Amino acid sequence: MAGIFQRSLRLRTALRHLSPQSPLSWTVTGRHTPLDLHCPFLPSTSWQFAVCSRKLHTGADRPSPAAAPDRLPFSRITQEDLAFFRKILPGRAVTDPDLLESSNVDWLKSVKGSSELLLRPQTTEEVSQILKYCNSRNLAVNPQGGNTGLVGGSVPVYDEIILSTAFMNNILTFDSISGILTCQAGCVLENLSLYLEDRDYIMPLDLGAKGSCHIGGNVATNAGGLRLLRYGSLRGTVLGLEVVLADGRVLDCLTTLRKDNTGYDLKQLFIGSEGTLGVITSVSILCPRKPKSVNVVFLGCETFEQLLKTFQLSRGMLGEILSAFEFLDSECMRLLNTHLKLRNPISDCPFYIVIETSGSDSTHDGEKLHHFLEEAMTSSLVTDGTVATEDSKIKALWSMRERVTEALTHEGFTYKYDISLPVERIYQLVTDMREHLGGRAKSVVGYGHVGDGNLHLNVTSPAKDPALLAAIEPFVYEWTASCNGSISAEHGLGLKKRNYIYYSKPIQAVALMGDIKAMLDPKGILNPYKTLPDDLK
Amino acid sequence: MAGIFQRSLRLRTALRHLSPQSPLSWTVTGRHTPLDLHCPFLPSTSWQFAVCSRKLHTGADRPSPAAAPDRLPFSRITQEDLAFFRKILPGRAVTDPDLLESSNVDWLKSVKGSSELLLRPQTTEEVSQILKYCNSRNLAVNPQGGNTGLVGGSVPVYDEIILSTAFMNNILTFDSISGILTCQAGCVLENLSLYLEDRDYIMPLDLGAKGSCHIGGNVATNAGGLRLLRYGSLRGTVLGLEVVLADGRVLDCLTTLRKDNTGYDLKQLFIGSEGTLGVITSVSILCPRKPKSVNVVFLGCETFEQLLKTFQLSRGMLGEILSAFEFLDSECMRLLNTHLKLRNPISDCPFYIVIETSGSDSTHDGEKLHHFLEEAMTSSLVTDGTVATEDSKIKALWSMRERVTEALTHEGFTYKYDISLPVERIYQLVTDMREHLGGRAKSVVGYGHVGDGNLHLNVTSPAKDPALLAAIEPFVYEWTASCNGSISAEHGLGLKKRNYIYYSKPIQAVALMGDIKAMLDPKGILNPYKTLPDDLK
Repeated sequence: MAGIFQRSLRLRTALRHLSPQSPLSWTVTGRHTPLDLHCPFLPSTSWQFAVCSRKLHTGADRPSPAAAPDRLPFSRITQEDLAFFRKILPGRAVTDPDLLESSNVDWLKSVKGSSELLLRPQTTEEVSQILKYCNSRNLAVNPQGGNTGLVGGSVPVYDEIILSTAFMNNILTFDSISGILTCQAGCVLENLSLYLEDRDYIMPLDLGAKGSCHIGGNVATNAGGLRLLRYGSLRGTVLGLEVVLADGRVLDCLTTLRKDNTGYDLKQLFIGSEGTLGVITSVSILCPRKPKSVNVVFLGCETFEQLLKTFQLSRGMLGEILSAFEFLDSECMRLLNTHLKLRNPISDCPFYIVIETSGSDSTHDGEKLHHFLEEAMTSSLVTDGTVATEDSKIKALWSMRERVTEALTHEGFTYKYDISLPVERIYQLVTDMREHLGGRAKSVVGYGHVGDGNLHLNVTSPAKDPALLAAIEPFVYEWTASCNGSISAEHGLGLKKRNYIYYSKPIQAVALMGDIKAMLDPKGILNPYKTLPDDLK
Repeated sequence: MAGIFQRSLRLRTALRHLSPQSPLSWTVTGRHTPLDLHCPFLPSTSWQFAVCSRKLHTGADRPSPAAAPDRLPFSRITQEDLAFFRKILPGRAVTDPDLLESSNVDWLKSVKGSSELLLRPQTTEEVSQILKYCNSRNLAVNPQGGNTGLVGGSVPVYDEIILSTAFMNNILTFDSISGILTCQAGCVLENLSLYLEDRDYIMPLDLGAKGSCHIGGNVATNAGGLRLLRYGSLRGTVLGLEVVLADGRVLDCLTTLRKDNTGYDLKQLFIGSEGTLGVITSVSILCPRKPKSVNVVFLGCETFEQLLKTFQLSRGMLGEILSAFEFLDSECMRLLNTHLKLRNPISDCPFYIVIETSGSDSTHDGEKLHHFLEEAMTSSLVTDGTVATEDSKIKALWSMRERVTEALTHEGFTYKYDISLPVERIYQLVTDMREHLGGRAKSVVGYGHVGDGNLHLNVTSPAKDPALLAAIEPFVYEWTASCNGSISAEHGLGLKKRNYIYYSKPIQAVALMGDIKAMLDPKGILNPYKTLPDDLK
């Protein structure tokens, strides 16, 4: 952390001249245990299956809208089916219950299916053969990438066949002039990032689950993450997709062109459709140049209003080099301290900000950052802060934000909400929820992507608590709808949120989604019980 | 204007003596006739209707794939229909042939319809009433924005009712914190730009037709334009749409959220579908902050290879402030000189580059630009150049690129191609076309968006020339397909390119487009004869 320390000292010295009366102290953490950045998803000791079945999930007489519906009348797997899959996927049609265990449960341990077959195709042709067969036999299929989803979209609900992209992990082409990468869907995001960094490029998205998640799953869920503020959403950066439709037809939209206005942009249908309309087998994506200069600042604020003013100030003063503006509250910091032994790099504050800049000139970026920090401090918008410019220190500061999700898994049971709101409203929901719940929750924490108006609201309790859930929902959804927000900013709907879609989408829109599903997957074999509400069935 | 006509000798001298710490003084005062930037679409003296009807268009026995197909069996407008429209749109159901004239023909004068009714709704509800009625009566409808399209998509082919968005030009909301603008579809792009500039924001797109085109038409055609390199495509910046479907149902997806993963992203279906799936009535769009510092450089290169190297250099050295990298060839310059009396601001070269930088710090931007130009000149990548930092000079330099389209209209007849290719191949198509055509064309010119791999290839002749057309097509499409390019990068397919879709899209994709059309517009009343190929009918 010496880099941060040095940088911070320099800053402090520079800034002290400007505001002698300022009581600010730019503290630095010099010594703490190195963070394990490669294992963000450490297994929790307490396994809790919230949506294993209708009964298990609800824990009450009346099923929650998040509960699994009754099993649909799909066929059951026969010996003939197994023989077929073993023939086309020699050694890659897994039926061993021990091997199936981890694919049947999501990493939050909130949904557990009972699939008896895991298929691991290596090629698009194999995926096509699988789906053609399943469609003809009316066998349900659960497409699965890195299984890092948070809404129960990536695991089977009952006995759906798990179609894993794990063995489809080849990089197909990379054009170093245009920065366009083409790869199979099962490439792990972090591996792609490392591949690109060697070639002076980066992936346009980054998220805490990068060590496990697959690019195909990222696209299928329209993952947002930490760089959206700068590089935009996957709807702009994904240039092409190859998709296998429910009946096995291969839809080749795997172009590598920045612009193409020849007819409807079919790939958009599959981005964010959570595997319910087709299985993404390959992706082409436009990658930005690796920035020559990256800085990360960790700041503390007394109020959320000051945090918002700091955001506005950063947009004006950091301009084109601002690449992330994230926040966490003091409750998040407490969980990081308690469960992961991460030390607060600055003094205790109600709110913390992580700002990242990425640019092409370290001198210019440093100057912009300095002027911004100077202004933020003299205006008393921030009360404490530290800066990192070295890669390892940057990662350490980032982990304060990225590992909040992991810290929460140690709290017991967590009710997770991923809300889009007008940016000036995002923390009010946390405050209102705390007040609304009173002492019923163990903790109510807020963190997320300020730059995108995206709040991650989490409510914890020692164990599953139907009474607490009933107090949270529909309160949280009604509050969000009253601000014209989205009840799922980036996590998707999956199994757990599917029936809440009407809080964010009008009936006509949901009906049209149903028409699209019926057109592309008339038997409904692809990721059933997910994304669309039960009343469309 | 001499400022922008600064000669290379002077540039070189300045660079030689200036250290990196001393930013160049790029601007100089000067004299030349101000350019008329507000009338990019001056009427041509020669009116040529290329696709008026099957017979007129083809000029030969065998119809060209661009020719209009036979009229489909839609109803004809009756007195009862007129009475209905006059009732719901008092004074805004136009039947005067003189008033209809300009709405029946595209601005290239290449397609002329024979519509006898122009409707000018003011509200979404009126559009809904119109479409509900037309659908029930099987009356075909041509949605029309600013009518600036280049592929015959914005005018009727036969007697389709013209549904103009011209009177739907209200700005609904603008959030100065998030930069999200919501407006009706008929707002003129330039008016939105002016509105935003007063509020320290800009539109994320800019194009030569800005003085006439409507934002609804921009979205319906997924317009690219001059800022795509920096701010990405409309698929990322458009946050929400309100659309009226063929049967009059209003689809409200007019959210103003940066992130929303609740179900399928239906708005994407309508972006770029050229009015064939629904009529866009309102748009919400994420607008970038107005850059504090803008510079434009006009450079000359001896070879296209040098131009590409200059592009690579600019990406590395200008990084995050590079906002446009455009080119034109010497033939374009000749047309600008001859027809529009625009003087070449630098010495004659085979290729010209327009580079724009946009940033938040004029000193930093000036330094980056200085270092880049110094390197480009010392590496002999560019042979001449001039820089503009003042608004009027910037506009004047931009007009050298923006007014090429207009200059071409004075050449006689122009065969226009809008091609996406891997960037290193884009000019080879021009060279190959010249060689292929020999003396048959009056001129073969190339210009476009290097940063997006987007070539505008134009072949001119004194008048329509079926033999020349037969020499150009399918040569141009086959050449493009052989490089996995797109035969329409940003112009869309409209009437003129619809049957060439298979050069860029596989049969399965086109078939699925047909399914989507049938699902959303089963009677096919919306913009018939456009976008989709005839063989899907």
